[in-house]
Amino acid sequence: MADKIKISLPDGSVREYDAGVSAMDIAKSISEGLARNVLSAEVNGEVWDANRAITTDATLRLLTWNDKEGKSTFWHSSAHLLAEALEELYPGVKLGIGPPIDHGFYYDIDLGDRSISSEDFKQIEAKMTELARRNVSFERRDISKADAIAYFQEKGDEYKLELIDGLEDGQITFYTQGNFTDLCRGPHIPATGTIKAIKITSVAGAYWRGDQSRKQMTRVYGITFPKKSELDDYLAMMEEAKKRDHRKIGKELEIFAFDDDVGPGLPLWLPNGAAIIEALETFAKKTEDEAGYQRVKSPHIAKETMYLKSGHLPYYEDSMFPAMEIDNEKYYLKPMNCPHHHKIFGATHKSYRDLPARYAEYGTCYRYEQSGELFGLMRVRSLQMNDAHIYCTEAQFAEEFKSVNNLYLKYFETFNIDKYVMRFSKHDPAKLGQKYIDAPEMWLKTEKMVRDVLVELGVNFVEVEDEAAFYGPKIDIQIYSAIGREFTLATNQVDFAQSQRFDLFYTNENNEKEHPLIIHRAPLSTHERFIGFLLEHYAGNLPVWLCPKQVAILPLSDKYQDYAEKLLKYLKKYDIRGLVDDRSESIGKKIRDAEIKKIPLMLIVGENEEKENTVSVRVHKEGDKGGMNWETFINFFNNLKEERK
Amino acid sequence: MADKIKISLPDGSVREYDAGVSAMDIAKSISEGLARNVLSAEVNGEVWDANRAITTDATLRLLTWNDKEGKSTFWHSSAHLLAEALEELYPGVKLGIGPPIDHGFYYDIDLGDRSISSEDFKQIEAKMTELARRNVSFERRDISKADAIAYFQEKGDEYKLELIDGLEDGQITFYTQGNFTDLCRGPHIPATGTIKAIKITSVAGAYWRGDQSRKQMTRVYGITFPKKSELDDYLAMMEEAKKRDHRKIGKELEIFAFDDDVGPGLPLWLPNGAAIIEALETFAKKTEDEAGYQRVKSPHIAKETMYLKSGHLPYYEDSMFPAMEIDNEKYYLKPMNCPHHHKIFGATHKSYRDLPARYAEYGTCYRYEQSGELFGLMRVRSLQMNDAHIYCTEAQFAEEFKSVNNLYLKYFETFNIDKYVMRFSKHDPAKLGQKYIDAPEMWLKTEKMVRDVLVELGVNFVEVEDEAAFYGPKIDIQIYSAIGREFTLATNQVDFAQSQRFDLFYTNENNEKEHPLIIHRAPLSTHERFIGFLLEHYAGNLPVWLCPKQVAILPLSDKYQDYAEKLLKYLKKYDIRGLVDDRSESIGKKIRDAEIKKIPLMLIVGENEEKENTVSVRVHKEGDKGGMNWETFINFFNNLKEERK
Repeated sequence: MADKIKISLPDGSVREYDAGVSAMDIAKSISEGLARNVLSAEVNGEVWDANRAITTDATLRLLTWNDKEGKSTFWHSSAHLLAEALEELYPGVKLGIGPPIDHGFYYDIDLGDRSISSEDFKQIEAKMTELARRNVSFERRDISKADAIAYFQEKGDEYKLELIDGLEDGQITFYTQGNFTDLCRGPHIPATGTIKAIKITSVAGAYWRGDQSRKQMTRVYGITFPKKSELDDYLAMMEEAKKRDHRKIGKELEIFAFDDDVGPGLPLWLPNGAAIIEALETFAKKTEDEAGYQRVKSPHIAKETMYLKSGHLPYYEDSMFPAMEIDNEKYYLKPMNCPHHHKIFGATHKSYRDLPARYAEYGTCYRYEQSGELFGLMRVRSLQMNDAHIYCTEAQFAEEFKSVNNLYLKYFETFNIDKYVMRFSKHDPAKLGQKYIDAPEMWLKTEKMVRDVLVELGVNFVEVEDEAAFYGPKIDIQIYSAIGREFTLATNQVDFAQSQRFDLFYTNENNEKEHPLIIHRAPLSTHERFIGFLLEHYAGNLPVWLCPKQVAILPLSDKYQDYAEKLLKYLKKYDIRGLVDDRSESIGKKIRDAEIKKIPLMLIVGENEEKENTVSVRVHKEGDKGGMNWETFINFFNNLKEERK
Repeated sequence: MADKIKISLPDGSVREYDAGVSAMDIAKSISEGLARNVLSAEVNGEVWDANRAITTDATLRLLTWNDKEGKSTFWHSSAHLLAEALEELYPGVKLGIGPPIDHGFYYDIDLGDRSISSEDFKQIEAKMTELARRNVSFERRDISKADAIAYFQEKGDEYKLELIDGLEDGQITFYTQGNFTDLCRGPHIPATGTIKAIKITSVAGAYWRGDQSRKQMTRVYGITFPKKSELDDYLAMMEEAKKRDHRKIGKELEIFAFDDDVGPGLPLWLPNGAAIIEALETFAKKTEDEAGYQRVKSPHIAKETMYLKSGHLPYYEDSMFPAMEIDNEKYYLKPMNCPHHHKIFGATHKSYRDLPARYAEYGTCYRYEQSGELFGLMRVRSLQMNDAHIYCTEAQFAEEFKSVNNLYLKYFETFNIDKYVMRFSKHDPAKLGQKYIDAPEMWLKTEKMVRDVLVELGVNFVEVEDEAAFYGPKIDIQIYSAIGREFTLATNQVDFAQSQRFDLFYTNENNEKEHPLIIHRAPLSTHERFIGFLLEHYAGNLPVWLCPKQVAILPLSDKYQDYAEKLLKYLKKYDIRGLVDDRSESIGKKIRDAEIKKIPLMLIVGENEEKENTVSVRVHKEGDKGGMNWETFINFFNNLKEERK
């Protein structure tokens, strides 16, 4: 009789099975429907093949297409399928590595004299589809180093041999599906049949092992889905994303620029970009002022001692710019605003009546990102953060946390963000005192408070085990642009550690010292990431209140220049941002250019308009709205602004 | 017959004198009245005794009490007078060094077992006055090293002997007045009689040669004036300045703080300080928007290549923070915003129709100041600058420069700055191609344009030779606080060099490339220096529009807390910054504390007010203004705000 093992499931239940049971067996024991969707499984925190035998007590999470790790397994298996197809189509092809990536997978191959171009993609997709339909299983096998070497010597694949050379005997595994076997740690999906929709997306050169002195291989990128409709949606989204690329729109609308002498990842904000920033900050300051925040202002550098106190050194050092040494002291560019805010809190005596203290700042932080990781405004080295820290008593915590979440929701509404997910990351009680600060009651208390708030607000959230910050539970917010692309916006964190590290306290009603709880929040992310998001989200057609130029005044000829300038001044009085197109171009050309610049309103002025003190109004993408006197136009403008929020 | 030499005077005239003539002789040849005021003279750029013989052709500037160098000579001679007095009062006293400083002078002395306290100041002043009245002249004498050593060995002064030890034979001079002789390079005033008003201000310890391992000497500080009334004014100003010390007010009103972990010279702006900054920026942005400026935004760092291009490296390197090296490139914190703005100008194509382009930014710059030089907000390492750069054609220059000056005047008016001086610094034609860029016509043209603007505007200015920036003429602006203290505010500079270094151009009407002229301006200086100035200028009683908190709501007891909070919300709707004093203190205490915090308006609310929906209004320093309903108070507030601009 087999030994019994205990399997703990995410819902808290514990079930008993025979040792050697697989995740798939367990899934089937729960529901056949569930089992059909299982791609892999997290066993004691590690992702495994769904059909691998479990021989000891374990915590188990079944992974499907809806889990990040499930997708990753699916795409890893798809990379093997790609390799199998390439071997059939290009006999003798040599294989490098083939991992899953954020969206899809690739395989690096050595084609010898041959090459692959986009014309070959269809054929590769067809071959992969044919192989997938065979619905063969992925089989895992332990193999000795000697046997592994023998296999690839026989096959004549020097890349795999080089990889095996770096591995330890006894730690090597092969995976086989159909006629294809690969050196691989896994895990993989149960069988090829679930790979229903396949797209080869691009081909590029890539040095073997990233080393420019080594062979340049061919990297074939692809993406796969369990349903045809999902692939169609993905392709449509990518097509739209290309049109909405924030780098393209940012250049066309003269929003930001990079410069070699300034440095990569350090955007320069041109007047149009600065105007968007100004509009966003004015809005955020007003909103947060109403929510009881106070603004503060802190320098961009601080001494080493501060970052030793905060723990950024040495834990976060890799993401920081290197030190500058003056007067025998090291100074660092701030990677986060929190320590400076803590110092501001600590600078004056605080009583319970001063709490909650909510300190907000658009503070620019600097983080070192590898140059290969930099991407437009999405991955930068200078970050203008809509940051704030709330210092409160335990009694105030729930109310404050709720307010912060409401602020997020308010912002989502303002920017027409319909789809979002809040990932509520919790601690692991087994790791108290190691990964998490050892305050078991505070963890349980604050996690409960956080969950209660999320439930009460009815927001869309998922709970994630063992992903909290070391100082408290946190919520990561993911939002989706109008075309369904996911952006990680910001986090909202609870913190019981920093007020002790920084010796921050307030005197309570009994005149005793107590450490405050701290909430870290940044609902509008950084200007860089958020404006990048907005450009895609609105395809450059920003809401009127955010447009750098809201009105283009287009004189029919130079004769009406003075009238146009007078009008511009009038608009400025109403805080309307306008420009006069004073070029000697035809009115048709001026209109076209204003449309290209996505300026929401055009005012055409000529002889009639000047005589009658009116303007001819055109709306971007909508066309002619007829003549209006100036006052009427202000109303028209305000209505459109209200409408297009 | 004596040889003739040519003396060039500041007004451009050249006069001929016998070789050996002194500056004093020349002064007398011009006017006896002038001669009476001469304290020393600048001969070929070096400050000399007024009675020292001039033996070659020279440029000459006579120095009086109105010149910085004249004052310095006066105070240097006063230090000798102090030493003479101390030798008479404390026989055997040994002397260290006795230089002039920004305001007055000191002498470091070794009193042996004796000591000096403030009780002795009167006696010292009396002795100095007695000696001054003898009106003996200061005599300069070259002396050999051997004789100098013999003199001080005889006198038994080891400090002077140590100083002589470091000097080269043939370069040593003594100065004698009456019975007192000192080792000294000079220069000195003609005679002691002009020192009419004398004040010993303080006494402190100071290590010999600043070395903590050497003897601690007694440093006696003093200040002197040529008129009694000037001393009285000075003492009154210092008394008032002490009360208005921005560091004291900044702490009392919780405006800013320093922290050891952040670093010296790096102020943290507390909520009240950030509110002042916000009010200033809102005002400046509005004013500058109306003047046609566009906002831009740039990172706080840039690569070495940028600062090599701009010339900051190596010329300005000592004032910069050290480099941070990443990806094999050096990055520097920006010491100025100009290069970033130049890059923004260059980021998009410019035609003559885009000019003038006026780019403004509240950019925070970082400069290394020695820790001993740091002083409150006045000398800091992080500088939030109200900066802008104007790119214009030559034809536009005069108009733009005039507008900038008008902006300065407008700002002076806004902040009740009645007294200011503009120092118009020009080039020296002899130094073209060395100290100044070699564009003689541009120099003459722009200097004329600058002068014409200054004359046309009727502003208070002085012309200074050979003090321009290397790239063009400049205006340094000095302002005076309400108590007459001088502050160097900012500069306004013309620049013909940087647009070439940065290859900036626009296409003119004929579609040819031309380099723009650049105007650098920062009329509100840095937040640090300007807010420091304002705190002294207004003695902390800021104009209502700048007050961090404009209204304190003071409930008579906890019962009226809700009413107070409702009122606070109402005020916020009108953009009035208020607070509720919710402490369980008496109304008397609450009023006193609001007065101490210099909050301009207090609203007392109790049973009557709640019942009748009114407030009892008090004005800071003025007292009770009676009851008002809420709407009436808004009017009252707005009137007071207008009145107290």
